[in-house]
Amino acid sequence: MAPQNTERRRVLADAAIDVLGRQGVHGLSHRAVDERSGLPAGTASNYFRSRDALLAAAMDRVADLHHAEMEAAAALETAPIGRARLIEMLGLSLLAAADRNRIRYLAVCELSLEATRRPALLETLTAMNEASVRFTCEQHRALGLDTSVEDVRTLILLYGNALFGLLTGPPERITRETALTLAKALVDGVLGPSRSEG
Amino acid sequence: MAPQNTERRRVLADAAIDVLGRQGVHGLSHRAVDERSGLPAGTASNYFRSRDALLAAAMDRVADLHHAEMEAAAALETAPIGRARLIEMLGLSLLAAADRNRIRYLAVCELSLEATRRPALLETLTAMNEASVRFTCEQHRALGLDTSVEDVRTLILLYGNALFGLLTGPPERITRETALTLAKALVDGVLGPSRSEG
Repeated sequence: MAPQNTERRRVLADAAIDVLGRQGVHGLSHRAVDERSGLPAGTASNYFRSRDALLAAAMDRVADLHHAEMEAAAALETAPIGRARLIEMLGLSLLAAADRNRIRYLAVCELSLEATRRPALLETLTAMNEASVRFTCEQHRALGLDTSVEDVRTLILLYGNALFGLLTGPPERITRETALTLAKALVDGVLGPSRSEG
Repeated sequence: MAPQNTERRRVLADAAIDVLGRQGVHGLSHRAVDERSGLPAGTASNYFRSRDALLAAAMDRVADLHHAEMEAAAALETAPIGRARLIEMLGLSLLAAADRNRIRYLAVCELSLEATRRPALLETLTAMNEASVRFTCEQHRALGLDTSVEDVRTLILLYGNALFGLLTGPPERITRETALTLAKALVDGVLGPSRSEG
C-alpha cells in the first residue's frame, strides 16, 4: 500500500474512534467520519466499503495505539520488575485510559457492546483479544514476570472491565488512588497473595 | 398510585429493558416500548414523558430485580457464611446475570455508556449505585461478614465490570468455571488473602 494510503486509513480510523467515543455507535457513519477527518466527502467509503470494515478499522487502530503505549512503558523498565511495580504500571495505564485517552476507550466500550449484535465484529474483537494476550505474555516475560497465559487472560479481562467502570462512573472517581486500588485488587486477585515484594 | 398504574409502569419498564438489551440505546423510543409491551400506542409517553424518564425507569427496575434476587439468595443462607461461600454466591450471581438474564444486564451496559453523554442519567445511576452499596453492606452484615464500606464499593465496581467482560466477550466464555474464577479474583483481590476458609 502506498504510504499516503496508509496515512489516510490511519486518519480515517482516528476520526472513527473520535465519533464512536463522543457520539456512540449510532453516531458512526461514513459521512460522520469524512466530516470529522476533514477529508472530502466519500473518502471513508472509498477506504472502508462497509460499516463493519469501518468498525474493524477503528478497533484495529485502538489495539495498535494501546500496544505501542504498553511497549513504550515497558521500555522504561529494567527487568525483572516486581509485583509492586506491575501494580503501579497497570494502575497508571488504567488512569491514562480513563482520563487522557477517555474518548478512545469509550469507543472500545461502544464497539464491545455493538459486537453483541454483530457476529463479524465479535470475531474481530475476539481475535484482537487473543493477540493482546500473546503480546502481554511476551511483555511479562521481558519484564521477568512468570505470569501464566491463563492469568494474563484473566488480568486483561479484568483490566478492560475495571476501565469500563471508571469510564462510565462519576468523573470524580477517576483518580490516581482509585486506579491504583483497582490495579492492586486485580493483580493480587489474579496472581494470589504476594510472595516477595518487588 | 393505583395498583393498575404501578403494574403498567412495571410492564413498560420491562419492555424498555428488553428493547435496550436487544437493540441498544439507539433502538429505544416510546413507540418501541409501546410495541414491545403490547400496550396501546401512546401508553409509554403517558407514563414517562421524556426519554430520560424512560431510561431512569428501566434502570430503577433493573435495580429492584437485582436486589430482590440478592435478597432471595441471601435468605437461603445461614449466617455467618465464610469466604468460600461468598465467592460461590458472587460467581453464581455473575453467571446468572451473563446467561439467564443476559438481556437485562446488556441493558445496564447500554444505560451506563449512554450516561457518559447524559448528565441526568449519570446522576440517577450514581444514586442507584450508592443505594446498592448500602444494600450490599447490610447484606454482608446479615451474612456475618465484616466487609468495610470501601471494600463493598470496590467489589460492586469490579463485579459490574467483570459482568461487562462476560457479556461482551465470546458466548462460550460464559461458563460456571469462568464466573467462579472471576469471583475468586475479585474477592481475594479486594479483601486480601483469605485468613480462615469458610
